[in-house]
Amino acid sequence: MTTVRLDIEYDGAGFKGWARQAGLRTVQSELEAALATVLREPIGLTVAGRTDTGVHARGQVASFETAVELPDDLKWRLNGLTANDLTVTAAARADDGFDARGDALSRTYRYRVLTRDASSPFEQGRAFWWPHRLDRDALDACAAALLGIHDFTAFTPTQTDHVHFDRKILSAAWESDGDILSFNVTADAFMRNMVRILVGTQLEVANGKRTQESFKRLLQGARRPDAGETAPPHGLYLESVAYD
Amino acid sequence: MTTVRLDIEYDGAGFKGWARQAGLRTVQSELEAALATVLREPIGLTVAGRTDTGVHARGQVASFETAVELPDDLKWRLNGLTANDLTVTAAARADDGFDARGDALSRTYRYRVLTRDASSPFEQGRAFWWPHRLDRDALDACAAALLGIHDFTAFTPTQTDHVHFDRKILSAAWESDGDILSFNVTADAFMRNMVRILVGTQLEVANGKRTQESFKRLLQGARRPDAGETAPPHGLYLESVAYD
Repeated sequence: MTTVRLDIEYDGAGFKGWARQAGLRTVQSELEAALATVLREPIGLTVAGRTDTGVHARGQVASFETAVELPDDLKWRLNGLTANDLTVTAAARADDGFDARGDALSRTYRYRVLTRDASSPFEQGRAFWWPHRLDRDALDACAAALLGIHDFTAFTPTQTDHVHFDRKILSAAWESDGDILSFNVTADAFMRNMVRILVGTQLEVANGKRTQESFKRLLQGARRPDAGETAPPHGLYLESVAYD
Repeated sequence: MTTVRLDIEYDGAGFKGWARQAGLRTVQSELEAALATVLREPIGLTVAGRTDTGVHARGQVASFETAVELPDDLKWRLNGLTANDLTVTAAARADDGFDARGDALSRTYRYRVLTRDASSPFEQGRAFWWPHRLDRDALDACAAALLGIHDFTAFTPTQTDHVHFDRKILSAAWESDGDILSFNVTADAFMRNMVRILVGTQLEVANGKRTQESFKRLLQGARRPDAGETAPPHGLYLESVAYD
């Protein structure tokens, strides 16, 4: 058996998320169909970060095993079969048994916010337009409070398949580049909607709707209704996944 | 009469260029219709840089005169009436007689090229994908040769309304940012397709199809067929217009 690693980018607008769902266009379905065409056997992908409908990826990683000999031009053939909103940036043999999900040490997400007063033709679907009051110091304080291990029960839907709600935040920071303010966060793992609820809640602090203290209390195992809105998916990017 | 200056951004993909054309969606038509709705009189716009079908603008400038009193919220009302791919970033009273076209001292265009081997979901329609050999030193030499006044007859279609073919290039340089290579060029004025033919021809030098010397000879009044391909419109952006 040969273990293969795929590095993948996609614009989430056209997909109902990563995971295969009957009758819907998803990243997994599209990639598995392309792999089956090229390798002439059914392929099941394992993925580092399952993304929801509308969420983008710049550094998604998936893996699979195959008994078929790998063609040298696998990357090119996959990109020839997939649409323009999905690109395989690397497709190569990995160490035997490499598992994109289980071997991942951490994931990094970025959430992009357009802060100017007018929307932008070039950021449609690429950043969340937030033309409101924005206390940058408050955002920085919130991000700093995230570091370490916390109970993030308040930052995932109440109805959940998750069993453990502690996650370890390795880095978290807001960063400005012109009119774009990005929230960059790295953790061992994330729960469903976690980054989007973290962003939505922090923006409520930045907007004066909520205090920094109330935000910090949410990190001690509050309930979902105590946290803020879920920021929309089109601002979110899976940036990278770290391995040993 | 009040003179008004508009600063405008648009994604060119959805427009048949700037200029009003019966039955077609153009930037001028859409803006003039919005202005007529807000000001309740017909408005004729003067523009700094007429862009072709598919060409983007980040810093387009237009002007008009009106006898109507200007509402304070003109910008917001225009953005409420136009689609998301067109944004008025500023709408304010200008000096009496300000003319966006006649008063412009120079225009700056940027042409974005995606140079990596795979296309990008996020650069679809935003950069020209050129996964070919690329001699950066040759590009820099071409750009340097452009400075000053030259006869650009070879860099505009043979069938033309232009009468004079000399243009003065004030700055021209290629610049890298990750996988994106941009050609930034400022001139007193440009002819139709000029930046796109300059880019297409320089890429032929970078690709080894054409020599630097042959490129330089084109600047002395060659014919259109002597120059290279017209690069596609979706890589081109009107970046800014300079006034006194």
